[in-house]
Amino acid sequence: MLEKSCNQFLQELSSKAPVPGGGGASAYVGALGMALGSMVGNLTLGKKKYIDVEGDIRELLKKSEVIIDGLKALVARDAEVFYPLSQAYGLPKNTEEEKNIKDTALQKALVDATMVPLTIAEYCLKAIDLHEEFAKIGTRIAISDVGVGVVFCKAALQGAKLNVLINTRIMKDKDLKNKIECHLKEVESEGISKSDRILQYVEELLVSS
Amino acid sequence: MLEKSCNQFLQELSSKAPVPGGGGASAYVGALGMALGSMVGNLTLGKKKYIDVEGDIRELLKKSEVIIDGLKALVARDAEVFYPLSQAYGLPKNTEEEKNIKDTALQKALVDATMVPLTIAEYCLKAIDLHEEFAKIGTRIAISDVGVGVVFCKAALQGAKLNVLINTRIMKDKDLKNKIECHLKEVESEGISKSDRILQYVEELLVSS
Repeated sequence: MLEKSCNQFLQELSSKAPVPGGGGASAYVGALGMALGSMVGNLTLGKKKYIDVEGDIRELLKKSEVIIDGLKALVARDAEVFYPLSQAYGLPKNTEEEKNIKDTALQKALVDATMVPLTIAEYCLKAIDLHEEFAKIGTRIAISDVGVGVVFCKAALQGAKLNVLINTRIMKDKDLKNKIECHLKEVESEGISKSDRILQYVEELLVSS
Repeated sequence: MLEKSCNQFLQELSSKAPVPGGGGASAYVGALGMALGSMVGNLTLGKKKYIDVEGDIRELLKKSEVIIDGLKALVARDAEVFYPLSQAYGLPKNTEEEKNIKDTALQKALVDATMVPLTIAEYCLKAIDLHEEFAKIGTRIAISDVGVGVVFCKAALQGAKLNVLINTRIMKDKDLKNKIECHLKEVESEGISKSDRILQYVEELLVSS
């Protein structure tokens, strides 16, 4: 999916084609956000002023790459799990037997289709944590980019959340539904408060310097 | 720039190469957000249930395409205006004459480098307005995608804002600086309140349906 050109990805996203959709796009925007964090790290390396934090920056860059790779894989995974879900939605429901078959297929497909955006949200939270580190020790020259990166990761987390909710709302396994929604709320709440704090820190630096 | 693959764009964004940076990435995320709005429009067309709004949806889709094209052009434009700015930053300042030359070049380059992200922010506000329309009349099946689209556009607006501020903070023409920052504040305030309202509307639909 990500071997396509940026223009083609935009064009396919805007079309009525089933994929990419909001879940895959969220994973991609999360990766774009984390890439901005990495950019700040890469701009910090080799600068005399920041020589003391080179080792820490290299560690952050490794973690950042793992997150970008994870989110890129989740773009593909989101498209994979959507297929069985859309197939299940399309099954007939004229007889009781058909209704049962459809319902079983739908509920089965829903689990994967929910876990993928939940994982995207978790990755975005990790990405926000890394931005906090880049904001602390990265070069001040690129401080605005830490802010841009973190707002992208927050938006990606919120986008992933909506993609969880659109699936859990029709989940019949209420225990699983509650467990997922409860965990999602924790991830969201932590992600939003952290990203808002980092953004505020960046904005204060920008207007005071 | 957007003819590159999504993977390559990610890779170049994360590198220390001067472009793409946070401004261009914001324009691209705004375009991704608007593309999700268009997707909802395209999924609404041809559906019996939504036959009454087909004309309105077609109008919204035209406007949406104009915004996507505008934001795509701003990705390229942001890279163009960064070049003279980075050149000016790199000029020597050993003598009074050199200082004057550098300062003149920097202040000149700053104006373009500020107006581009300001325009990106304005486009994101228009994109948010269109999402409000798609949320009202678009197919309920894709309501989560309206929400994802709007959080992307909000993040893109906030990202563009940081790219305005990093430039206005060193602008010597205080009248221009104040005028830009004042206009930016209006755009941001309207964009954030509208996008938050749309997101809340989408979330309420998702948990109540």
